[in-house]
Amino acid sequence: MTEESRTRVLDAVVRVLAEQGVDRLRIRAVAEEAGLSVGAVQHAYATRNDLVHAAMQHVSERFTARLLSAVERDRAPQENLIAVSRLLAGVDEDARQSTVVWLAFTSLACNDPVIAESHRSAWRTLEHGLLLLLTQAAPHASADDAAELLALLDGLAIARATEPERMPSERAARIATRHVARLCARSG
Amino acid sequence: MTEESRTRVLDAVVRVLAEQGVDRLRIRAVAEEAGLSVGAVQHAYATRNDLVHAAMQHVSERFTARLLSAVERDRAPQENLIAVSRLLAGVDEDARQSTVVWLAFTSLACNDPVIAESHRSAWRTLEHGLLLLLTQAAPHASADDAAELLALLDGLAIARATEPERMPSERAARIATRHVARLCARSG
Repeated sequence: MTEESRTRVLDAVVRVLAEQGVDRLRIRAVAEEAGLSVGAVQHAYATRNDLVHAAMQHVSERFTARLLSAVERDRAPQENLIAVSRLLAGVDEDARQSTVVWLAFTSLACNDPVIAESHRSAWRTLEHGLLLLLTQAAPHASADDAAELLALLDGLAIARATEPERMPSERAARIATRHVARLCARSG
Repeated sequence: MTEESRTRVLDAVVRVLAEQGVDRLRIRAVAEEAGLSVGAVQHAYATRNDLVHAAMQHVSERFTARLLSAVERDRAPQENLIAVSRLLAGVDEDARQSTVVWLAFTSLACNDPVIAESHRSAWRTLEHGLLLLLTQAAPHASADDAAELLALLDGLAIARATEPERMPSERAARIATRHVARLCARSG
C-alpha cells in the first residue's frame, strides 16, 4: 500500500471514531469510509488492533506538530504558553474532532496495553513540554504545576467536546488564560 | 425481570466496560457476564442502547450517592470540599473502575444524543454542587472557579486511570488539595 493510501486509511479511522464512535470501529467501517476494499486495508493492517495503533501514532504526530507550530520564537513565553494551552483545551471549534478521537483512544487505552503505552508516552512528553514552556514564563514553576495545568486543559477539552453549552469557547479560553496568568504571577 | 436481576445486568455492563472496554459492549457479553440468557437481558433492555442508557443512569445515581455521603454536616466546608475533590479526582485505588466506566460513557456521549443529554445533565448538577460547596468554603468563589475545579478533577481522574505511574495517588491528592487551598485563600 502506498504512503498516500495509508494516510487515507488512517484519516478514515479518525473520521469513524469522530463521527460514529469507538464502538463502531471495525475494519469494514474504515474500508468503507476510505473507499477501499476490506482486503486492501487488511493487507496493510492485519488486525483491528494494528489499525488502531497506527491511527493513534498518526494522530499523535499530527497533534505534536500543531503544538510545536503554536510556539513562536519571537513571542513572550507567557503568550506561547497561552497559545499551547488554548490548543490543548480545545478552545477552537475545529478542535472537537481531535478531542473526540483523543477520548476514544484514552478509553481504549484502559484495556489495550499497546495503546496504553503509546498514551502514557505521549502524556509524559506533553507534561515535560509544558514544564519547559512554563519555566520560561514562570522560572519557579514545578512539575506539579505542569501536571496541574495539563489535567485542567484535558478536563476543559472534554467539557468543550461533550458540553459546548456549559463550556463555550470563551469560557474555556477565559479559565485556561487566568490559570496561566495566576501561575506566572505566583512563581514570578 | 426482578429489580435484583436488573441490578445484576447493570453491574455486568459496568464490569464489561471496565474490564473489556466500550468496543466490546454487546448484549451477548453482558448476558454472559451476568450469568443470564441473551433473551432474558433483551426482555428487560430491548437494544444495546437501552442497556447503555440504563447503565449510565445506574452509575450516575450510585456516584451521586457516594459524593453526598462524602459531605459531613459537622466538618469545616474546606474539608468537605477536599473530600469531594478526592472522590472526583479518583485519588483512591478503587476509583479506577468508576473513571474507566465514566470515560467509556463520555466517549459514547460524543455520538449518542441520549447519553450526551444524560452526561450534560450530570455535569451541570456537579458544577452546581461544587459551586455550593465552594461558596461555603470561599464566599467569593465564582461559577468559573467551580468549572475550573471540576475540569481539573476530571483531568486528574483520567490521568489516575490511564497513567498511574505519572499520576500516583499522592500526587493527584496533592495537586487537588493545594488547588482547593489556594482557591479558598484567594476568595476568603
